[in-house]
Amino acid sequence: MFFSDAVVAIAITLLALEIHLPDLRTASDIPEALVKLWPQYFGYAISFLVVGSFWYGHHRMFRVVGRYDDVLLWLDLLFLLCIAFIPFASSVLGDYPGERSAVVFYSVVMITTGLVENLLWAYATYAHRLIGSSVSERTIRIQTLRNLMPPVVFALALPLTFISPYLAFAAWLAIYVILMLLLRVERRPLTASAPTDEE
Amino acid sequence: MFFSDAVVAIAITLLALEIHLPDLRTASDIPEALVKLWPQYFGYAISFLVVGSFWYGHHRMFRVVGRYDDVLLWLDLLFLLCIAFIPFASSVLGDYPGERSAVVFYSVVMITTGLVENLLWAYATYAHRLIGSSVSERTIRIQTLRNLMPPVVFALALPLTFISPYLAFAAWLAIYVILMLLLRVERRPLTASAPTDEE
Amino acid sequence: MFFSDAVVAIAITLLALEIHLPDLRTASDIPEALVKLWPQYFGYAISFLVVGSFWYGHHRMFRVVGRYDDVLLWLDLLFLLCIAFIPFASSVLGDYPGERSAVVFYSVVMITTGLVENLLWAYATYAHRLIGSSVSERTIRIQTLRNLMPPVVFALALPLTFISPYLAFAAWLAIYVILMLLLRVERRPLTASAPTDEE
Amino acid sequence: MFFSDAVVAIAITLLALEIHLPDLRTASDIPEALVKLWPQYFGYAISFLVVGSFWYGHHRMFRVVGRYDDVLLWLDLLFLLCIAFIPFASSVLGDYPGERSAVVFYSVVMITTGLVENLLWAYATYAHRLIGSSVSERTIRIQTLRNLMPPVVFALALPLTFISPYLAFAAWLAIYVILMLLLRVERRPLTASAPTDEE
Repeated sequence: MFFSDAVVAIAITLLALEIHLPDLRTASDIPEALVKLWPQYFGYAISFLVVGSFWYGHHRMFRVVGRYDDVLLWLDLLFLLCIAFIPFASSVLGDYPGERSAVVFYSVVMITTGLVENLLWAYATYAHRLIGSSVSERTIRIQTLRNLMPPVVFALALPLTFISPYLAFAAWLAIYVILMLLLRVERRPLTASAPTDEE
Repeated sequence: MFFSDAVVAIAITLLALEIHLPDLRTASDIPEALVKLWPQYFGYAISFLVVGSFWYGHHRMFRVVGRYDDVLLWLDLLFLLCIAFIPFASSVLGDYPGERSAVVFYSVVMITTGLVENLLWAYATYAHRLIGSSVSERTIRIQTLRNLMPPVVFALALPLTFISPYLAFAAWLAIYVILMLLLRVERRPLTASAPTDEE
Repeated sequence: MFFSDAVVAIAITLLALEIHLPDLRTASDIPEALVKLWPQYFGYAISFLVVGSFWYGHHRMFRVVGRYDDVLLWLDLLFLLCIAFIPFASSVLGDYPGERSAVVFYSVVMITTGLVENLLWAYATYAHRLIGSSVSERTIRIQTLRNLMPPVVFALALPLTFISPYLAFAAWLAIYVILMLLLRVERRPLTASAPTDEE
Repeated sequence: MFFSDAVVAIAITLLALEIHLPDLRTASDIPEALVKLWPQYFGYAISFLVVGSFWYGHHRMFRVVGRYDDVLLWLDLLFLLCIAFIPFASSVLGDYPGERSAVVFYSVVMITTGLVENLLWAYATYAHRLIGSSVSERTIRIQTLRNLMPPVVFALALPLTFISPYLAFAAWLAIYVILMLLLRVERRPLTASAPTDEE
């Protein structure tokens, strides 16, 4: 799926296009203006890492997908439609980082993207429909857990937004780290029993 | 044709760049402003799916094209010229979704793109000029029908624009679904007689 | 050279980003505004075809290049630097199509890009430095002639700009067609004596 | 790593998007306006060559990387995050070329990007972790020296910024040329002893 990779690569690179230095009256305002852009930098970094994580999930999924059909292609297109929409959601977050509505909008876009990715994986793996039968149930389950990570992180942090948007930012990181640690525990036996698996 | 795939991938991702939150006076206007952008979201989704459908058609065509010549390359470049123009047509539609002239302009761009794709396919398949002789007449005919879909959908809906632009939007979906159902009927025998064909 | 192909694909697709509908007072101004953008459409089409022609030349060159060295890579980067600059030159032409200075600037950018492409080819082919020895002198010479086309077209049309910029546009097309016809005469014997060559 | 190549290709092509002709009162101002944009052209050319050099380094590194793991992928994503940020740093430099703060900001972005590239290489080569054992220590060392070039150039020139920003520009070129000459001396014996190595 070269096409998908290209779309994700473009969307991730466009994220930085949303960062702009405002018009300054004097050049001595540059340092302050550059510092004041921190919410944009922060939004850029978060979005870059989340889209990167979506890409990595997508990449891993399509490494085991052996066949394609029209439904998979349209589901993939729907996934890319969500991915290409993220730069807009990211620019809203960068412009209004402390606003609940901006954080909620951003979270909803991320959750939707994640759910479509999970739908795609569910379709491809149901009864081993489109993946080789050599793919173990364990590999499928681990990939499912990985795919569930982004939507779960953003869904769990969503209620915190109503206390404080900044709390949500911290929660994204915290939940992600906790889930990664849990997942790593889950993965250890697999790697031990199948050392050639690059997982 | 890696180059073509890249151009289509870029054009499809640029579609979302046309969506912009207007400057707001107070942060409490964010939810309303995000909702008011629905025509932009709608135009984005439509254009994404249509360009995606063009890409899929192009991808399927070039899977059976075995040889290239200068004419095919220039026809492909003409097709890409149309594809790369779609983000502009889409931004016009997103800015003026209820205006007849915007819908007509958008439809004409889509019809033109579709006709160039059909021209390309006609050139490549005429007397099996550039496709392998192993490609069956049935596969060629099905691909021709698929290629005709986008221009036919937009051409059939064009008169409805003069009653109401919103009627045209509904017609795009309706005609597409009807044609897909018809095509599926046509395709059934083929799949039965050629089970290895990934069609 | 996947990287080069990607850069050219991005530059060619960005050309359309320079086209923008101005802010309109009433929606009934849309048809007139869309028509008034003709210089932008024209500049877009010209630039798309010229960049497409540069891409095609680059693609043909690198099909016979068998080895790379640092000099070739930096020459290729210089070529891409020129290609990625063309959307800016194209936007200047689209904004001021009837202005001599805009046409001269555009022509100079195109001539420079073409000369760098020729320099790259001269470096790669000098004493068969980086191309396989199986590449015939005739193939090299034909590619050299093809590479010379874009800079020669724009250089020959440059004096006409000082009579009228619009004359230059006509000259670009006329000189291109004339040179293509001449080149085709040159190419005929080759194709006859080497029918398997896809040239 | 097709994805990385695509991100770098997009970032390098977006550099030119930052160049814009200001609104002019009369068309006779075009030549002057085009000339006055020289800092933008200069910043574009510098950034293009630096990103090109980062790409080349990345390309050479991943040619010897034989295996991937999650850490490498996240380090690569961090590298791409820096690369995709360069168009913004470049636009700041293009807007305020004579301002110390703009040059310092630009230098810091370049140094950071270079350090991440070195970190990635250190991780991949430590105890031949991810590269084939057939890769010689000499090849690793030369690549390390090459990777150190961009951050060293910008770090060495940084103090000169406090004398004059324009001095820093000259220093970038001077230090680069000096280091290239030194590196070439280092490389000569290798090429002699390993003529099949395309290095």
